[in-house]
Amino acid sequence: MTEPTKILLSETEIPKDWYNVIADLPFEMPPMLHPGKGSPVEPDDLAPIFPRALVEQELSTDRWVEIPQEVREVYGLWRPSPLCRARRLEKALGTPARIYYKWEGVSPPGSHKSNTSVPQAFYNKAEGVQRLATETGAGQWGSALAFACQLFDLACKVYMVKVSYDQKPYRRIMMETWGAECVPSPSPATEAGKRILAEDPDTSGSLGIAISEAVEDAVTHSDTKYSLGSVLNHVMLHQTVIGLETKKQLELVGHYPDVLIGCVGGGSNFAGLFLPFVADKVDGVAPELRIVCTEPTACPTLTRGPYAYDFGDTACSTPLLKMFTLGHAFVPPPLHAGGLRYHGMAPIICALVERGIVEAQAYDQIPAFAAGLQFARTEGFIPAPEPTHAIRAVIDEALACKEEGKAKTIVFSLSGHGHFDLGAYAAYLAGTLEEPQGCDALLKQALSCLPMVP
Amino acid sequence: MTEPTKILLSETEIPKDWYNVIADLPFEMPPMLHPGKGSPVEPDDLAPIFPRALVEQELSTDRWVEIPQEVREVYGLWRPSPLCRARRLEKALGTPARIYYKWEGVSPPGSHKSNTSVPQAFYNKAEGVQRLATETGAGQWGSALAFACQLFDLACKVYMVKVSYDQKPYRRIMMETWGAECVPSPSPATEAGKRILAEDPDTSGSLGIAISEAVEDAVTHSDTKYSLGSVLNHVMLHQTVIGLETKKQLELVGHYPDVLIGCVGGGSNFAGLFLPFVADKVDGVAPELRIVCTEPTACPTLTRGPYAYDFGDTACSTPLLKMFTLGHAFVPPPLHAGGLRYHGMAPIICALVERGIVEAQAYDQIPAFAAGLQFARTEGFIPAPEPTHAIRAVIDEALACKEEGKAKTIVFSLSGHGHFDLGAYAAYLAGTLEEPQGCDALLKQALSCLPMVP
Repeated sequence: MTEPTKILLSETEIPKDWYNVIADLPFEMPPMLHPGKGSPVEPDDLAPIFPRALVEQELSTDRWVEIPQEVREVYGLWRPSPLCRARRLEKALGTPARIYYKWEGVSPPGSHKSNTSVPQAFYNKAEGVQRLATETGAGQWGSALAFACQLFDLACKVYMVKVSYDQKPYRRIMMETWGAECVPSPSPATEAGKRILAEDPDTSGSLGIAISEAVEDAVTHSDTKYSLGSVLNHVMLHQTVIGLETKKQLELVGHYPDVLIGCVGGGSNFAGLFLPFVADKVDGVAPELRIVCTEPTACPTLTRGPYAYDFGDTACSTPLLKMFTLGHAFVPPPLHAGGLRYHGMAPIICALVERGIVEAQAYDQIPAFAAGLQFARTEGFIPAPEPTHAIRAVIDEALACKEEGKAKTIVFSLSGHGHFDLGAYAAYLAGTLEEPQGCDALLKQALSCLPMVP
Repeated sequence: MTEPTKILLSETEIPKDWYNVIADLPFEMPPMLHPGKGSPVEPDDLAPIFPRALVEQELSTDRWVEIPQEVREVYGLWRPSPLCRARRLEKALGTPARIYYKWEGVSPPGSHKSNTSVPQAFYNKAEGVQRLATETGAGQWGSALAFACQLFDLACKVYMVKVSYDQKPYRRIMMETWGAECVPSPSPATEAGKRILAEDPDTSGSLGIAISEAVEDAVTHSDTKYSLGSVLNHVMLHQTVIGLETKKQLELVGHYPDVLIGCVGGGSNFAGLFLPFVADKVDGVAPELRIVCTEPTACPTLTRGPYAYDFGDTACSTPLLKMFTLGHAFVPPPLHAGGLRYHGMAPIICALVERGIVEAQAYDQIPAFAAGLQFARTEGFIPAPEPTHAIRAVIDEALACKEEGKAKTIVFSLSGHGHFDLGAYAAYLAGTLEEPQGCDALLKQALSCLPMVP
């Protein structure tokens, strides 16, 4: 029988547990530090902003965490997501490589983000929370949380990075369609926002600023908790449904990846794909497996940032995280891949990069869009700007396979569709898309604040 | 075992043949008439605008038409599409009814239209055609044809109804992303367009006008054929993959529909769903089955038009079709459901409505959007404006079931997503969405041209 284009699983095969890689790491993760005391955070320190269940998951060392039935039922609206063989792209490239993409754009909000927004809304609701506050970059996380809050009957307030709020009005309407309130960040609704607006009324905003606003909103409203769409351990945990399904799907067609590729902003979509494969690499089951993070040269966290403790937000209100960071004050130049405009990175990914278990590579915006267009014109689906960075790496890898005559298995995370990013494709097609400028100067200034902990 | 949320089929279960209902109708279809001679059209009459294979299908009375392997391979990018149980909507309504939707928004262009664009591109390519010309209303058909032409390496020119071209710029960019050229219609590129612009430079355009332009483009370019996204028999034929899959999916869970519901503009998405069930109703296998077409009150073809021969386009260049029609000069008032703004309707559907085998019901725009919003807030996926008319009927039917305590099985066609129609949702949420005005006066004038054949 020919291998199908889409490798599907049945709903009963939605994973019953999330996988916690912490249990299998051959090293200790550096702890999250309390911003005031400098000591490792205790569960009570996180209680004002997260529900108890998520705090437990954040600090957990258990290998498996059961997925509540109510969450699996919502996952069933779109999961298991298909693992697709990109045969037309392979043919266009003339490569002997097998290219697979895990297609997360099939969820109602159109990206992988709902894998964690749904359990986050569920646990908050279960503990009596009535309202969630969050930030969003390109709008994928904000719409995923709006969707989840609607299903679990929670109010939702989204602080959206101003440059994306202006560029992507449809993302805001999507959030409103699901009943959420969305404002541009920095906003006059918070002290952090007011302070930044006073300094620079024309700021394009950043994820770091928006996080400060959302955290402040949560701690100043007793009915409200904060919700984060990436970076933290519990978010990576929820996203492992991606990789757990992928592993099973690849087994069905008898292949094991030679290379896993994904884009990283905070890191959640790609961590979701690769974390369930890390133990294989570490334990010697698959020592040759390469795991490649792709990021934009305009926000080169893993490739140019130091590995240091830093704040997750601009206003220095979050715990300190050990991560590759460009400095918490770093505001990258405008870039269409709004979801990749974060100064830091998930500590789990950073620890793996630091130890050489995971690689990182930065790509310019224009070659990334060229790759995205080639994908759209062969496979049909139009990728969001973020995963075009992964596709650039995939195509380069597949062309290297052609050069070397090697039939490698390349698997990548196609984290979402680009239906709300077509303005960027229009600019690319018109030849008016530009590379973001001024990154070096911005970096020099932002990095000067480091290290935050000696 | 609990019934899954999504009833899936494997790729090997993509139908191997399209179903031609003509073979099973208990009556003769009125023939298409030549616009000049008034006699039934011969294959040679259609040869200037369609490839031979499609002309054969248009006039065929064979029950089954084999789907080429190349077409099934492209279908495999997204087909079989899921049949989903709308459990959250059922619960919100408190209805004992079972509601299923056939989800066609999973295709790359986001609607059912690629079910026919792909075979049309395939057959044209196979016969040496180099370029296709077509019209589009809301842009769903245009983007589906752009997608298919890209995969089969054909050039593509799309005449897009001006009001939609202005309202939905992202649809145009989507077509360009797949390599097509898209212009607002009426355009100065054709004689038909020039004539209409001279009469009314501010016209909002109509499907009838855009069809005239695309047909003229095809007959005046020797390398070009015309492609139609609805109305004609061969289009209905290709869309039957929807209903054939649905029948099999319902069998897997042991249900047979009591009511089938869909929206109709030219009629292709709903005909695709219901045609494979018509024989059951006609033969007495399922005499109680109800088949309900929904249309907008602002373009009430089936509910207010006479059943008469009329042209398919405004410039009177197409063959005459026996159909319910509002008159070929009818230009409906602006309406967000651009795909439902057509003066005529598929002759197959019309013949079934005329004989009482299929019902029709018109809905206002605002209650349709209210239903669409309720669907988005329960099931997650945001429907295009067109199928919100079907959802209005589904919800009303499900509430009647609640009233009567009947557990009917309601199946509807969710023809596409509303990612490019969020402006309409924003207007609805802001309370500024209005009902289209002036339909009665427009109708009176347009109907005065009928009948075209005594």
